[in-house]
Amino acid sequence: MSGIVPAVGLSDHVVPDLIAAFTARSLTIGTAESLTGGLLAAVLTEAPGSSAVFRGGLVVYATDLKHRLAGVDAALLARCGPVDPHVAVELARGARLRCAADIGVGLTGVAGPDPQNGVPVGTWYCAVLGPADREQLRRGLPTASATRAEVRSAAVTAAVELLANIAATDS
Amino acid sequence: MSGIVPAVGLSDHVVPDLIAAFTARSLTIGTAESLTGGLLAAVLTEAPGSSAVFRGGLVVYATDLKHRLAGVDAALLARCGPVDPHVAVELARGARLRCAADIGVGLTGVAGPDPQNGVPVGTWYCAVLGPADREQLRRGLPTASATRAEVRSAAVTAAVELLANIAATDS
Repeated sequence: MSGIVPAVGLSDHVVPDLIAAFTARSLTIGTAESLTGGLLAAVLTEAPGSSAVFRGGLVVYATDLKHRLAGVDAALLARCGPVDPHVAVELARGARLRCAADIGVGLTGVAGPDPQNGVPVGTWYCAVLGPADREQLRRGLPTASATRAEVRSAAVTAAVELLANIAATDS
Repeated sequence: MSGIVPAVGLSDHVVPDLIAAFTARSLTIGTAESLTGGLLAAVLTEAPGSSAVFRGGLVVYATDLKHRLAGVDAALLARCGPVDPHVAVELARGARLRCAADIGVGLTGVAGPDPQNGVPVGTWYCAVLGPADREQLRRGLPTASATRAEVRSAAVTAAVELLANIAATDS
C-alpha cells in the first residue's frame, strides 16, 4: 500500500524533501485546517521522520471550533464568515501558537459539492506564517467542474508549496 | 481525482453510510489522532455532508500536545508512554470534550519504520467513546512486514469500524 500522497497528486519526494529540510534547520510545523479536514497533516505525517518537524494540528471543521480551538477572533468570524483570507491568517497564527511550532499553516474554504453561505465551491485561502512572522497567502478560485477531492488536493498542494518556499529561502 | 479513501483501503460507501447514519441521529464526532496524523479526520471529511457530523479533531503528534491539546494526564503519559490503551481512551475523552462532540475517537501507536521507545512497529490502540460513555477499544499487533501506510490505514479502518458499531447499535 503506497499511502495517500499519490492520491493527492503530490510527487513522492516532495514531502520527504520538506521534512528533511526542516529537520536540518530545526523548524517545526503546526496546522489548522478547515476544508481539508486533516488532509494536510495526514500528508505531512506520511513521511517517515515527520515527528521531528510536525508537532500537531487542529482540524476546525465546525465554525465555532475555529474560535475555540484555534483562537480565531469570534467577531472576525461573525463579520467575514469562515472563508476569508484574514481567517486563514488567524488560523495559521493559532496553529503556530497552540501547537507551539515555528511555522503555522491555516486553511479555510469551500470543498463542495454545495456553496457555503453564498461562497462558491473551489474558493479557499491558505496562509503560512513562518519564522519572524513572514506571511504567505494563496487563494483558490471558484471552479464549477472540480470535485471535492480535487479542491481539497489543490489546497493541500498550495500549503506544501508555501512550506517549500520557506525551506528554500529562510536560513 | 477520486480522493484518498481508496488509498486507505476502505470501500467507497462506508464513510458516506456512516455520515448518513449519524446525521439521521444527530450524533457528532470529534477525533484525537497521533500515529494516523489527521488521516481519520481526512477520511471522514472526504464525504460530502460530513460537516453535519464531524465537528473537528486534534492531531497530537508530539507527546506534550497529547496533554496540552487533548488533556491527557501528564502523569499517565510519563508512566505509560504515549502508546498505551489508557492514553487512547483519554485521547477519545479529550476529543469529545474539546471538540464538543457526542462521540470521541482516540488513536495512538507506532507507524514505523522504527520502533518508538521500545514499542514495536504496528502496535496501536484505538478507543471510541460513544454517547452514554459506551467505550470500545481495539488494538493493532506488532508486525514486521507492514509499511507505515499500511499501519496507519489499519488504525483508521479500525476507527471507522468502531464508529460503524455505534451507528448500527445505538438508538
